[in-house]
Amino acid sequence: MMMPSVFEKYRADIDGELRAALSGYVSPMYDMLRYHLGWIDERCQPMIGSSGKALRPTLCLLACEVTGGNHRRALPAAASLELIHNFSLIHDDIQDDDRERRHRPTVWSLWGKPQAINAGTAMRVIASLTALRLEEQGFHPQKVLRIQNLLDRTCLRLIEGQYLDISYESRLDVGVNDYLTMVEGKTASLIACSLETGAMLGTDDELVHKAFRNFGLNLGLAFQIQDDVLGIWGDEAKTGKPVGNDILRRKKSFPIVFALEKAEGVARAKLVSIYRGLSISEEGAAAVLRIIDEVNTRAEARRVAEQCRTKALMAIQETALSPYGRQNLEEMANFLTQREF
Amino acid sequence: MMMPSVFEKYRADIDGELRAALSGYVSPMYDMLRYHLGWIDERCQPMIGSSGKALRPTLCLLACEVTGGNHRRALPAAASLELIHNFSLIHDDIQDDDRERRHRPTVWSLWGKPQAINAGTAMRVIASLTALRLEEQGFHPQKVLRIQNLLDRTCLRLIEGQYLDISYESRLDVGVNDYLTMVEGKTASLIACSLETGAMLGTDDELVHKAFRNFGLNLGLAFQIQDDVLGIWGDEAKTGKPVGNDILRRKKSFPIVFALEKAEGVARAKLVSIYRGLSISEEGAAAVLRIIDEVNTRAEARRVAEQCRTKALMAIQETALSPYGRQNLEEMANFLTQREF
Repeated sequence: MMMPSVFEKYRADIDGELRAALSGYVSPMYDMLRYHLGWIDERCQPMIGSSGKALRPTLCLLACEVTGGNHRRALPAAASLELIHNFSLIHDDIQDDDRERRHRPTVWSLWGKPQAINAGTAMRVIASLTALRLEEQGFHPQKVLRIQNLLDRTCLRLIEGQYLDISYESRLDVGVNDYLTMVEGKTASLIACSLETGAMLGTDDELVHKAFRNFGLNLGLAFQIQDDVLGIWGDEAKTGKPVGNDILRRKKSFPIVFALEKAEGVARAKLVSIYRGLSISEEGAAAVLRIIDEVNTRAEARRVAEQCRTKALMAIQETALSPYGRQNLEEMANFLTQREF
Repeated sequence: MMMPSVFEKYRADIDGELRAALSGYVSPMYDMLRYHLGWIDERCQPMIGSSGKALRPTLCLLACEVTGGNHRRALPAAASLELIHNFSLIHDDIQDDDRERRHRPTVWSLWGKPQAINAGTAMRVIASLTALRLEEQGFHPQKVLRIQNLLDRTCLRLIEGQYLDISYESRLDVGVNDYLTMVEGKTASLIACSLETGAMLGTDDELVHKAFRNFGLNLGLAFQIQDDVLGIWGDEAKTGKPVGNDILRRKKSFPIVFALEKAEGVARAKLVSIYRGLSISEEGAAAVLRIIDEVNTRAEARRVAEQCRTKALMAIQETALSPYGRQNLEEMANFLTQREF
């Protein structure tokens, strides 16, 4: 599964807009943000490294372009979405006590949790200031306000999802439906928002905005389920995370939630006793993995993700799109549902 | 020193607007916000209690009214300012490890730090959504965007100030100028923003906006210096904080920063050795208090705060105001500089 070519097409523009968004801030506080984004190293020296996929800004620009807009004018929104995603990563790392992300120490593990809270919140505020720059691109102030409103409401969904994720940690009665509610907040809402925002900047047709929103919401669910599959069976060389990592971290990811719901008798009792323990050993993780396999979790994950992909494509079926547009959206849907990194 | 009557005048309107801002959010996540605001107790039962002074919204409404506006139309901005203030309190309590605020357990001490981070960030996002409601009050979308921009830039100043405050904890070379830079970010910027925003909603005259901003900036400095004086010599029954509290917490508040700069010889060596220790004992705190007294810190704090008050009043001297307006602004300036609670 190759990465769709649009990622490459927009990369330089997105990077430039992100750097512009963070320029002019001189307090050393902002070094934490630049470090997190992979622009400088721990000693504040410039770094040439691979930044992330920039999935959300890419989706935003693609939606803008295929609905008839000029993608360059949507750049402030695209950068804002990436900053919102990164604000949530900085805070997630604190909340989950994660010391590493993408093979580098997390912000809090270098600067301490109190300062990392500041870094995350500052990132969120700069995201908002960046979206306000849409006005300079000639969009009507009222449209900018509507987008600001959508971004804020999306942030609340995101935080609600994170709230559920944390509260699930100490619970074993979390079912697939609870899981989907959590993921809709934590992941799908921002992906849906990326596509809706792009469409809002490409056209005034509200039916199209809604179609792109639903396309994104379903893709977001599929994306997270696939992410959870990679979190257990993914190739460490490709994902940057050790195999079985999510089990050791006791994450209520799709496979474990499904297994808790599906396993019966001895298998279920074993699962529950392992998750009730103070920590999960390598041996315990291997046992969990066996039970997850026994109830055919991978096939079920595949099936649910595929269902979401189909719903996503149905959402934009009636939308008038050029062959180029439709092809790119389909490529994106396939990539997000089937990616291996 | 009585509280100016405008606090009472606007109280019900501000409370109503704040409750409207938080209505409709059903996730239990938002109970943390309602708890923090003093509306519900730990078991989520409604509480009748004294909320805070609502200083920032009161300043905003007063500025709007005395510059010719209808204060009710400024309520979304006023509520937004109070929510921004409270977002920063929730995060400050986590960062400072404070278990109590206003005689109640802090949010993190009840729900844990990971969830309290969510509560603070959600409060910040709701502040932004609340300010967007200014459009419903008939203000031009462009003006709403300008105010949104000002609120966001102010939040960054606030976070920069908090960043400095935390980084000063481990330093003993912090002088009065460093202190003033920190306080300008952490406290004065939001008070300046409250007055500027109010003026922006009352008049289009940019000179008046600037005058109110400077009035607020200087009042904010005086307010914080007085707050620091109360943090050491304040009456516990009135302030809700034990005498000498800021010394035990090793805060780089005005008195200690001034004493570190002013004390010489044995006194200075004693101060430094106490602050270099792992923790400060009651006895150590008493010694610190003696040294602070010896260098006449209280008189100096009085002098600097008075200087700020004079500058604040000079900033609005040339502004055309009704006798009612000028009298209320002067009363407010006196109260903030001389209050004992």
